[in-house]
Amino acid sequence: MSSLAPIRITIWNEFVHERQNDVVAGIYPKGIHGALADALSIHADFSIRTATLDEPEQGLPQSILDETDVLLWWGHKAHEEVHDEIVTRVQQRVLAGMGLIVLHSGHFSKVFKRLMGTSCALCWREAGERERVWVVNPGHPIATGLGDCIEIEHSEMYGEPFGIPTPDELIFVSWFQGGEVFRSGATWKRGSGRIFYFSPGHEVYPIYHHPDIQRVIANGIRWARPQGVAARTPRHVPVDQAREVIASQGGTVH
Amino acid sequence: MSSLAPIRITIWNEFVHERQNDVVAGIYPKGIHGALADALSIHADFSIRTATLDEPEQGLPQSILDETDVLLWWGHKAHEEVHDEIVTRVQQRVLAGMGLIVLHSGHFSKVFKRLMGTSCALCWREAGERERVWVVNPGHPIATGLGDCIEIEHSEMYGEPFGIPTPDELIFVSWFQGGEVFRSGATWKRGSGRIFYFSPGHEVYPIYHHPDIQRVIANGIRWARPQGVAARTPRHVPVDQAREVIASQGGTVH
Amino acid sequence: MSSLAPIRITIWNEFVHERQNDVVAGIYPKGIHGALADALSIHADFSIRTATLDEPEQGLPQSILDETDVLLWWGHKAHEEVHDEIVTRVQQRVLAGMGLIVLHSGHFSKVFKRLMGTSCALCWREAGERERVWVVNPGHPIATGLGDCIEIEHSEMYGEPFGIPTPDELIFVSWFQGGEVFRSGATWKRGSGRIFYFSPGHEVYPIYHHPDIQRVIANGIRWARPQGVAARTPRHVPVDQAREVIASQGGTVH
Amino acid sequence: MSSLAPIRITIWNEFVHERQNDVVAGIYPKGIHGALADALSIHADFSIRTATLDEPEQGLPQSILDETDVLLWWGHKAHEEVHDEIVTRVQQRVLAGMGLIVLHSGHFSKVFKRLMGTSCALCWREAGERERVWVVNPGHPIATGLGDCIEIEHSEMYGEPFGIPTPDELIFVSWFQGGEVFRSGATWKRGSGRIFYFSPGHEVYPIYHHPDIQRVIANGIRWARPQGVAARTPRHVPVDQAREVIASQGGTVH
Repeated sequence: MSSLAPIRITIWNEFVHERQNDVVAGIYPKGIHGALADALSIHADFSIRTATLDEPEQGLPQSILDETDVLLWWGHKAHEEVHDEIVTRVQQRVLAGMGLIVLHSGHFSKVFKRLMGTSCALCWREAGERERVWVVNPGHPIATGLGDCIEIEHSEMYGEPFGIPTPDELIFVSWFQGGEVFRSGATWKRGSGRIFYFSPGHEVYPIYHHPDIQRVIANGIRWARPQGVAARTPRHVPVDQAREVIASQGGTVH
Repeated sequence: MSSLAPIRITIWNEFVHERQNDVVAGIYPKGIHGALADALSIHADFSIRTATLDEPEQGLPQSILDETDVLLWWGHKAHEEVHDEIVTRVQQRVLAGMGLIVLHSGHFSKVFKRLMGTSCALCWREAGERERVWVVNPGHPIATGLGDCIEIEHSEMYGEPFGIPTPDELIFVSWFQGGEVFRSGATWKRGSGRIFYFSPGHEVYPIYHHPDIQRVIANGIRWARPQGVAARTPRHVPVDQAREVIASQGGTVH
Repeated sequence: MSSLAPIRITIWNEFVHERQNDVVAGIYPKGIHGALADALSIHADFSIRTATLDEPEQGLPQSILDETDVLLWWGHKAHEEVHDEIVTRVQQRVLAGMGLIVLHSGHFSKVFKRLMGTSCALCWREAGERERVWVVNPGHPIATGLGDCIEIEHSEMYGEPFGIPTPDELIFVSWFQGGEVFRSGATWKRGSGRIFYFSPGHEVYPIYHHPDIQRVIANGIRWARPQGVAARTPRHVPVDQAREVIASQGGTVH
Repeated sequence: MSSLAPIRITIWNEFVHERQNDVVAGIYPKGIHGALADALSIHADFSIRTATLDEPEQGLPQSILDETDVLLWWGHKAHEEVHDEIVTRVQQRVLAGMGLIVLHSGHFSKVFKRLMGTSCALCWREAGERERVWVVNPGHPIATGLGDCIEIEHSEMYGEPFGIPTPDELIFVSWFQGGEVFRSGATWKRGSGRIFYFSPGHEVYPIYHHPDIQRVIANGIRWARPQGVAARTPRHVPVDQAREVIASQGGTVH
């Protein structure tokens, strides 16, 4: 059981709005990554570091990723600035088993789009309206400790159709005051890695200070930590190593 | 019902081995695309064209894709030569509703990897061994007209673990003489488009001349033809167009 | 292609409320089954009959089921009166390939619970509030011809968590004025049969007179018609009929 | 984190063949349940009890189930003797969160058929042939500690099509010497409970003495332990308790 080893978490944030917009700076004076790191620091089984776009190698050198069990991703304005080689690096680590938690506007990040293969597009409206995040899968560990729903007094609307592949598991569906719905919490397996997308978190409202939102993210981290092993592929199996005795016959292109 | 309109099919083939390898040329004198086109031409509801890598815009100008309901993809040796803009073009068409059938070594094509988001890697062995393609989903339309399994006397082994996302539907699982198994027929929805991967088809054996293999491909084409509509996203929903009356409140980053 | 053969539809209704409640009788003077039959009769490819609980063998003798491609099920008050042998009969036909469309309060029917294996329980409120049925899967054939959502001015609230297995496909998610959400349209494959659950349809509001609701049901019928073949199981495969030559060895309990 | 509390396991066995067949008795002198209990007793986080068909209330009084986190089920000859009220009791506990591991011929138990809703039928042959259980999902915790596959020298063949709903996760696919394949390890969520079916285990071969088979079962137990909470349904939500202020309007059947 690896459950006793601390989970090594890297919180990645583009860290742009918090330095350009006074409202956002007021809500998250240490950045969204800083707020999340503070909130998650109460968990003794978490070992947390943060990384931002303006750091060397955009905060994600291979050495950091190699020591990361679960990566959190928050981005919005600077998606296009993330280098393709960083995206490939993250993808490879997820396929090898690293967990990935994509937050809010990260739905449109290069990393999430690369791993989903779809548009990841949606409808949206920034009106500070009420959002109610309903648990549709109460037996899922990510819903542990929640009531029937999470009430968020001011939120950005994200609406369907959400351009994602069929989720392996749907955990949350949101109701919006303006009349829309959204699949706000869903999971996918990609290679040996687990991915959790969770939509609440617009930067002009104090959503990451909400205890239930923090709880969902902590649950998500525990759920997403690496399991099993990476696939030993691609791999050629020579004829003389086949599990059953066979003789080679027919043509070849090799 | 659109079932009476002919299905516009484009069979894309890199068309390399057939011009370099005598064995392959002997089996497919008109190329794999030509053999498939001939085999599928018996269906009155199919309107077929072919396209190859050496043609202008690698055979897939936007105008051709716009008139394609279902695209078949066969590639092996020249995956890396396919331009990224062609890959993006195909991906966009699939998300908008075009069907895609990926054949054999196309599992490692840029197009398939882009749409899956995973490694798409596998194990393999070219020994001309026996493959038996079992139907695990007899109620699926792609299995229509088959018996319990398809016997292929000489085939290339493809083995697990196959680096794909959880299929929406698993239709075929293959048994190999040398001792392996493989998920040889599976489907996914990506955006509004349907994708079917079917693994038999190594070029040094006459697999595409097998009547049951041809039947599966024809079934797959009918299953993959466009359904429903493309998503109207990304889309901003202004406050005054919300379905319920709401007033804007809170900060903004826009 | 079987697309040209008419689809043989049986609309089953317990037909209780329409004879006991004046409001319901006023909305559906010919019963809910009669209203649906009338609405669906515009489709030339549909061959429609109705069946009700008070008929011999509760309207579903084997001979009727054997000639049914798609069965619609509406029940609410009399679920417990349906005989277990009728439930078994319907289940067997679905597993053999018959389509099944379960409407509204049919979520708690013996037939649906038998095929799902779960509680099929939910939250509810009868307040005549507004429901908005959002399309979350615009490429699905059941969503053909719809806009972004269906507006229902007066509806019964059905809320999460809905006690169903993970749907194979999620097509609709509903928003309710009182603050809840619900997975209002979903599909499952059971054996060779396709099942579609669609929740709008409370009997004290004229929901089945809504053109978009009728359209969804017609789309659902076309989607659910039998595909492929029934499984040839359970089946013993004697040693001398194995596909590969093997000799029997070891003990036996037979 | 509940990971430190011991997992309370009940191993249920019909315990018939071991008392009637000398071969089986020789392999499992303490019964299959006894052999599994011994094998699993090495895990410090497991608290194990056994139960058999001939005990009061068929070994599963409510009090035992209420104290069971994960139930293992082995049955073959006596499926029909299990009382329907015991089946209902087990189903209710699974829906409320108890894990369930169904072994080998348990595929045809009332409990598994009740929870799946399908035929659960398959093809079979008792010839003592070789089975090779391939890992198709190396990142799944149930595959932890395994190599590419498990080799079983003598096994009963189970073949496709296996009459199950689409698994939530497919973990193992088996190859058989006689030419068949089988989805030999798969999971489903039902209510808040996790279900794992694992097919190897025919009673006339010493399969449960195989270290890798024991490992899979131990992994399965850890994976299946209860997560999250049970659904609070069915539940009526009165108008005055709606999350948004609404007024009741329209007719009623209540």
